[in-house]
Amino acid sequence: MTTIFDAPEDFAVTALAGFSSIYARNVRLVKGGVVRSTKVPKGKVAVVIGGGSGHYPAFAGYVGPGLADAAVAGDVFASPSTAAVARVCRHADQGGGVLLGFGNYAGDVLNFGVAAERLRAEGIDVRIVPVTDDVASAAADTAAKRRGIAGDLVVFKIAGAAAEAGLSLDEVERISRFANDRTVSFGVAFGGCTLPGANHPLFTVSKGEMALGLGIHGEPGISEEKIVSATELAKLLVGKLLAERPDGTKKVAPVLNGLGSTKYEELFVLWVAVEKELKAAGLEIVDPECGEFVTSLDMQGCSLSLLWLDEELETYWRAPCDAPVLRKGTIISAEPATDVISDEDGPATFAPASQASKESGKCIARLIGKVADALKQAEDELGRIDAFAGDGDHGQGMRRGSAAAQDAADVAAAAGAGAASVLAAAGDAWADRAGGTSGAIWGLLLRSWSNAFSDDDKPSDAAIVEGARLALEGVTRLGRARVGDKTLVDALVPFVDALEREFGVHKSLIAAWEIAAKAATDAADATSSLTPKLGRARPLAEKSIGHPDAGAVSLALTARVAADFLKESVDG
Amino acid sequence: MTTIFDAPEDFAVTALAGFSSIYARNVRLVKGGVVRSTKVPKGKVAVVIGGGSGHYPAFAGYVGPGLADAAVAGDVFASPSTAAVARVCRHADQGGGVLLGFGNYAGDVLNFGVAAERLRAEGIDVRIVPVTDDVASAAADTAAKRRGIAGDLVVFKIAGAAAEAGLSLDEVERISRFANDRTVSFGVAFGGCTLPGANHPLFTVSKGEMALGLGIHGEPGISEEKIVSATELAKLLVGKLLAERPDGTKKVAPVLNGLGSTKYEELFVLWVAVEKELKAAGLEIVDPECGEFVTSLDMQGCSLSLLWLDEELETYWRAPCDAPVLRKGTIISAEPATDVISDEDGPATFAPASQASKESGKCIARLIGKVADALKQAEDELGRIDAFAGDGDHGQGMRRGSAAAQDAADVAAAAGAGAASVLAAAGDAWADRAGGTSGAIWGLLLRSWSNAFSDDDKPSDAAIVEGARLALEGVTRLGRARVGDKTLVDALVPFVDALEREFGVHKSLIAAWEIAAKAATDAADATSSLTPKLGRARPLAEKSIGHPDAGAVSLALTARVAADFLKESVDG
Repeated sequence: MTTIFDAPEDFAVTALAGFSSIYARNVRLVKGGVVRSTKVPKGKVAVVIGGGSGHYPAFAGYVGPGLADAAVAGDVFASPSTAAVARVCRHADQGGGVLLGFGNYAGDVLNFGVAAERLRAEGIDVRIVPVTDDVASAAADTAAKRRGIAGDLVVFKIAGAAAEAGLSLDEVERISRFANDRTVSFGVAFGGCTLPGANHPLFTVSKGEMALGLGIHGEPGISEEKIVSATELAKLLVGKLLAERPDGTKKVAPVLNGLGSTKYEELFVLWVAVEKELKAAGLEIVDPECGEFVTSLDMQGCSLSLLWLDEELETYWRAPCDAPVLRKGTIISAEPATDVISDEDGPATFAPASQASKESGKCIARLIGKVADALKQAEDELGRIDAFAGDGDHGQGMRRGSAAAQDAADVAAAAGAGAASVLAAAGDAWADRAGGTSGAIWGLLLRSWSNAFSDDDKPSDAAIVEGARLALEGVTRLGRARVGDKTLVDALVPFVDALEREFGVHKSLIAAWEIAAKAATDAADATSSLTPKLGRARPLAEKSIGHPDAGAVSLALTARVAADFLKESVDG
Repeated sequence: MTTIFDAPEDFAVTALAGFSSIYARNVRLVKGGVVRSTKVPKGKVAVVIGGGSGHYPAFAGYVGPGLADAAVAGDVFASPSTAAVARVCRHADQGGGVLLGFGNYAGDVLNFGVAAERLRAEGIDVRIVPVTDDVASAAADTAAKRRGIAGDLVVFKIAGAAAEAGLSLDEVERISRFANDRTVSFGVAFGGCTLPGANHPLFTVSKGEMALGLGIHGEPGISEEKIVSATELAKLLVGKLLAERPDGTKKVAPVLNGLGSTKYEELFVLWVAVEKELKAAGLEIVDPECGEFVTSLDMQGCSLSLLWLDEELETYWRAPCDAPVLRKGTIISAEPATDVISDEDGPATFAPASQASKESGKCIARLIGKVADALKQAEDELGRIDAFAGDGDHGQGMRRGSAAAQDAADVAAAAGAGAASVLAAAGDAWADRAGGTSGAIWGLLLRSWSNAFSDDDKPSDAAIVEGARLALEGVTRLGRARVGDKTLVDALVPFVDALEREFGVHKSLIAAWEIAAKAATDAADATSSLTPKLGRARPLAEKSIGHPDAGAVSLALTARVAADFLKESVDG
């Protein structure tokens, strides 16, 4: 039970503020995250990590010399926004580039991925390393699909040590990816966790049972079994991981992690048995860790992570670090930072634009205004639809995101921005204000679309159609959904396909768009027959049959508004 | 729910072993506790702390440079034995004397107190500082009766810093006591904790309610109220403590402590509100701590401790330390220790004794054998009686303790020890093997009694009577029970009074003892009308009316056995 809070919606932000106050020696609070409060050498690769809140000490507790330079914190169990990731990276960058580490979840892949693209566009070299250690979440031959759990600590520790050693971004990336390849975790849950403000646990485990491989946000596990003794539990955890022991591995760095309500003394009891199992397997244990490293609010359970060491990994695993929750070896000199961090976003500036492109920018801003109006009106209905398969906040997110996009587009258009810049600014604002996966998806959709435009010209009809394809590519490259997953992609794919096909046939944008919008609507309706395949919604999957996907409906609605807008623009 | 263990009875010992394996850099495992694994300067005052297990990081997690030198660990929520305390102190002593710190609980007061007396007899200067920070457990004008909770960390930190600074034992004791006088805590509980192997929580708090001032072993609180917001909770905690702010205090060191299942992010949220309240009271906050410092297995709740600082306390509060759960400032040099700790108890050696005293020693050993036989036969009956007011383990404890006493007395007598040494050895063995409060009480009783004897002579009848008075004084000085509390004292007082009175009248030990044994039996029977006043048994108090106290019954039984033995000895 999460019991202590004022407003549940402020929980994550307030917790981060409290953490930063207590650990002022280690960190400074910035918008959306924390950065080191100690001096960092110029030119050092910045290791920036993050993810949702509710997992303390992940991720802010890892910030310190020899580990991370900064951490981005989203809402409870929700990815931080693209803007937050980008902002924290800008603060952390010392000119040596940024290694962005995060657990392999759809929302994080999206927001960290889009942030990386934005930062690269600004001239900051950024590499991303999604952590994929949870062997319960996918088979070894599709390891890239695995979730990140307590292996986060392991991979980020190696990355931080490599960066602290002064290695180049190429090298830090290589070593971090190698560490991820060599890190495996397996966990069990005995009981659920409760979100701030909720009256019931997010999930439950049957009394006397343990859920094997249950995820740190309650994602389904692989089976439920009777709770066993510490000795048997150690055999189970170690056994699962030994199955993936690379040939010839002689040394291992273990992390035995408590998920929240499983206490240190229980972990120590388990450690005695784990140590025995590892030694029995002929493994030498190097600098084991046992405690809370990646929690899940007050979830009851634990996980074991193993890093299969070679000489290089051992060096970086043993290297000193000094973060709130992990300290090793001799303390690295940590002089207090003296620079002033300005956390205010300055006024947006835009590239010079041609008159024609400026006019198009204004037109785009007007269209986004129409979309925002329509989504505002549809808020309750979208929320109702979403509640069948999700948490019912889709309408709210779409309203907030589109309103922010409208504001940003208006500001950009009034400042004389061209078509590409207006649409990109709208997309960024949408992602940053809407939050969640759908906000990031819409931000990505608009920003990718804007790549077909320029600030030098009025976008041609062909460019508009090309933009649709880029938008789809962007969404499917960083998002994870495919057709049939009951997401926005189910409507977006037929829309883009129809738009391209009909434009090729008729050469008329209005006619093609009209047909494409109808295709999107039909496809959105057809999602009623699907069950969602992604995320935490599985327990609700049955309930959603017979109801369309809210994201697909939103896309169809937007396509419809745009179709009408195009006709009006020609008529008007 | 405590879920991970093999045999519940091995939980505490195994947890300590696991902790010591993980923190080998900091500690070495010894029988019953841990000592620093880093070099300690010769002549430094040793700070030895301890108490029951189940409170991690209290107490083993406090061991390190600038904090404690060693920690003694009892069973879950049970005081360590006198022998364990004494043994760990011997390992930790560097010739500068020992400061013994523990929370103010009956069992700890007894075991640490008796250990201190034993060590002093061995020539080690020992001072005891019971921590009494919990304002909910007694009024300010009887502050010495207060329990110790998270203020443990505060007082031990000050003690550790003062010792590290090279101060004398007198000074370390003075500063530690002063720190205790200036430390106040208040806590709330939202939910109970479950002992290893138990199916139900040790106590529960009504849903949606919080228990104010509930103790860390489930001792009754002062009231139950609706759960409030973080802001209101901060006002409540700070308000309670500000009521005891010493005049003129301008600075404060706060410790916001989680009890187990209340997570760090909740504590950070609460800290933001606590910080505001403290500042509003005009207090300057120095080095605040927020996290888990004294837990209660998986109990849900938190406490706030405040150390009212003056210049001296601020110096020691800010001083560097490096323990598993607390590190401050620049790390103190911590070279690995190279000495070898022998954890085996060598063969007991005894002072030379006269032939007469040796014969008496053998006689005492025979008497203890008779007592052990009788208590073994009475085990089930004593357990049944105890179950009305306690946990039903009294019979088991008495059987184990008396059997150990018999063994030790036999060994001592066979080795040619005199009367005083045989009885003292029996008492020490009883305390060390029986465990719990009654074991310590019986150990104390026999050892105190032995102080009336010597190894030079056969004990006179007058010395035997005098020993009874010394035994009563020892038990009431370090134990806490008074007549009417439904404990062994209810039978011991009339026994000793009758023995002295009748011996004064008749000058015959046998006759006096016979009458005293009857008085003890009558008094034990009369405890049926009393309700227990001490310990955690309050919820069971009603249930115990109509049943005598098991401890008083044991004492009466023992007095009866001794009466028969005396008669037989004279007859035989």
